[in-house]
Amino acid sequence: MAAEAEAGREFFTTRTVGEALAGFRPERRTRAEAVSVAAALGRVPAEPVVAPHPLPGFARSTVDGYAVRAADTYGVSEGLPGYLQVTGAVLMGTEPRLSVGPGTAVGMPTGGVLPAGADAVVMIEYTQQAMPGTIEVVRPVAPGEGVVRADEDAAQGAQLVPAGRPLRPQDLGMLSAAGVTAVAVHARPRVTVFSTGDEVVSPDTAVLRPGQVRDATAAALGAMVADAGGAPVSGGIVPDDPAALETALRAALPASDVIVISAGSSVGVRDETAGVVARLGEPGIWCHGLAIKPGKPTLLADCDGVPVIGLPGNPRSALVVFRLIGIPLVRLIGGCTTPPPEPTVRVRLARDLPSATGRLDVVQVRVADGAAIPLFGLSALLSVLASADGFLIIPEEATGLDAGTEVDVTLYR
Amino acid sequence: MAAEAEAGREFFTTRTVGEALAGFRPERRTRAEAVSVAAALGRVPAEPVVAPHPLPGFARSTVDGYAVRAADTYGVSEGLPGYLQVTGAVLMGTEPRLSVGPGTAVGMPTGGVLPAGADAVVMIEYTQQAMPGTIEVVRPVAPGEGVVRADEDAAQGAQLVPAGRPLRPQDLGMLSAAGVTAVAVHARPRVTVFSTGDEVVSPDTAVLRPGQVRDATAAALGAMVADAGGAPVSGGIVPDDPAALETALRAALPASDVIVISAGSSVGVRDETAGVVARLGEPGIWCHGLAIKPGKPTLLADCDGVPVIGLPGNPRSALVVFRLIGIPLVRLIGGCTTPPPEPTVRVRLARDLPSATGRLDVVQVRVADGAAIPLFGLSALLSVLASADGFLIIPEEATGLDAGTEVDVTLYR
Repeated sequence: MAAEAEAGREFFTTRTVGEALAGFRPERRTRAEAVSVAAALGRVPAEPVVAPHPLPGFARSTVDGYAVRAADTYGVSEGLPGYLQVTGAVLMGTEPRLSVGPGTAVGMPTGGVLPAGADAVVMIEYTQQAMPGTIEVVRPVAPGEGVVRADEDAAQGAQLVPAGRPLRPQDLGMLSAAGVTAVAVHARPRVTVFSTGDEVVSPDTAVLRPGQVRDATAAALGAMVADAGGAPVSGGIVPDDPAALETALRAALPASDVIVISAGSSVGVRDETAGVVARLGEPGIWCHGLAIKPGKPTLLADCDGVPVIGLPGNPRSALVVFRLIGIPLVRLIGGCTTPPPEPTVRVRLARDLPSATGRLDVVQVRVADGAAIPLFGLSALLSVLASADGFLIIPEEATGLDAGTEVDVTLYR
Repeated sequence: MAAEAEAGREFFTTRTVGEALAGFRPERRTRAEAVSVAAALGRVPAEPVVAPHPLPGFARSTVDGYAVRAADTYGVSEGLPGYLQVTGAVLMGTEPRLSVGPGTAVGMPTGGVLPAGADAVVMIEYTQQAMPGTIEVVRPVAPGEGVVRADEDAAQGAQLVPAGRPLRPQDLGMLSAAGVTAVAVHARPRVTVFSTGDEVVSPDTAVLRPGQVRDATAAALGAMVADAGGAPVSGGIVPDDPAALETALRAALPASDVIVISAGSSVGVRDETAGVVARLGEPGIWCHGLAIKPGKPTLLADCDGVPVIGLPGNPRSALVVFRLIGIPLVRLIGGCTTPPPEPTVRVRLARDLPSATGRLDVVQVRVADGAAIPLFGLSALLSVLASADGFLIIPEEATGLDAGTEVDVTLYR
């Protein structure tokens, strides 16, 4: 076993996280599909959507008041009000039958259509009824005041939402206002998640036999995939048997946009996984070994156009690597060029953190009272991740961070 | 119209946003329901979940190597290795049949069960085969080294996830590891969303008649509700008719945890909406008028235990208010006591921003090159919100912010 493991290690092509993010960029993109705007939150438009007609489409009052010709109000004041004859009122949602001529005004609700002849709306606060049918105006208005232009919210052909940015609630509002009811979005990348290991059993196993562990990684990875806009597909649990793994991977390949394998945790099993992935398709393995802690035994491959991520066997290491490498990959393949911002907080480090140069360290922390408190514990412990509020990164070039250093913590949500 | 509007205003009970968040705290909470862990991402546990048994449940190797009695390695070195007889190897996922006695070792895969008699695992890197069946050990190990204790990931009864915090991917992993397959979570608050206004038509209206506008608010509010963990229910579009609105609200009351009304935009219609809400149930209106820009004509009420939010008629104002007041309310009723963190960024303000004291201003901004660039435009314009990267807040006590001031921008995602 030892000899095999040592031999296997010689084939490692170790990369940094930065190299992986910049260099492992599969060309695969999911096709476009139409979804209704009501179901489009978080979906990624495949192309920009433009306004089919001007918005709001008519000159619209922004206040309650009176539609007027602005020139009729020039020079008026509290001391010297202007007098206008009110010829009627506009009703919401209807085209005004009246027009506004010199010396006249028409009552306007907020949002009403500006009548022909009017070029401004005087707020009701600056008017009062002088006698039935006549108002006093005590403040002048400029042309355009109290009015939204017919194309002020969007000109015809103006971009309503860009391609590549997940749709936000206000984007759905903007599309609805424009009468866009369906939008072409990238299909969710289908991410098939395999767990491997003779010791791994389903999470619904009530009583474990000694040596067995329940599959913790698949549920967490599935949630991370969904959160990144992908569609997780369960590949199930595969025993430590290269032939069984190869059969399972080949079967999944045609229906997967990404394949994720929580690899066995021992070196021998990892090498077997790498061997299977290497045979799966061309050009094959891109890196085997990532300069990250935890998470070194990570494998990245491109098998006939399907990216394959081999994750470490430890659930915690697997989730750390998937967050840094897998989520950006799922987003990339799903056409997301502007990922949503992640919550971060800048706080002081509560204690010294050692680190080796040449390796990126991901440290789980709790955040309390403006300080980041590192959580220690073996990389096998999932509880460290479950108790963390977020993580910080010690970059490759650093030899560690001193207590009191200001650090940026990425917060889990 | 003017007289009515002015009279209506006298009944305004204006509150600050802070008062609304601290003071408008309905007691309503949604009931608990069981959901499978696979479907529980983002759901809010109704009670803490504890480990039903210790995890991992057995002492487990964290490295590839040899299970030993630590005392057998004391004093060994590269120059003076210790020799141990290898009596066999542990297989993954099975209970070891061998035990480790003085002078012996058992081969261990990472994750394997520690055999009886052993108290540590020597990494394979610190051993080599001396002759068949015998290894040299060149580095001593302490008891517990290379081993996860049987209850190190979680002791029996230890809290796996807290109540009140939406479940994150790693929480689902932790629950799966413990064999917890279903979790009691708060039901999603049912939030019925009404749009009102004679001018408002369905977003699928292809051609608008003059004066009509498509309902932009409902789609955006529905998405915000879903994002906050609620279940949006469409109440549809109600004309500016108090009787019709009252009928619609009364019908929705029994099946709603929250009711949201995008109120008509003119003062008269707003007052009619307030009148209807006031009749809907006890204790009724809590505030009518919020010291916020945009969004002043906001109404908050408690109608027989169902909170009712009356939003301004302008889509942009409505979405600004719902984000600040509605989302925390939906979370509260859905049992969420620890809301997920929001992405923020600290940048410099690109230009002066005036503001009136006593009023909270919500300013939409783009963020570029480390600066927040305020987006101006009438509060009627939804496009301002759709072009924004986030927003900043000018608090009530400020008279404005100078260009160059450091501001915290909450980013949309």
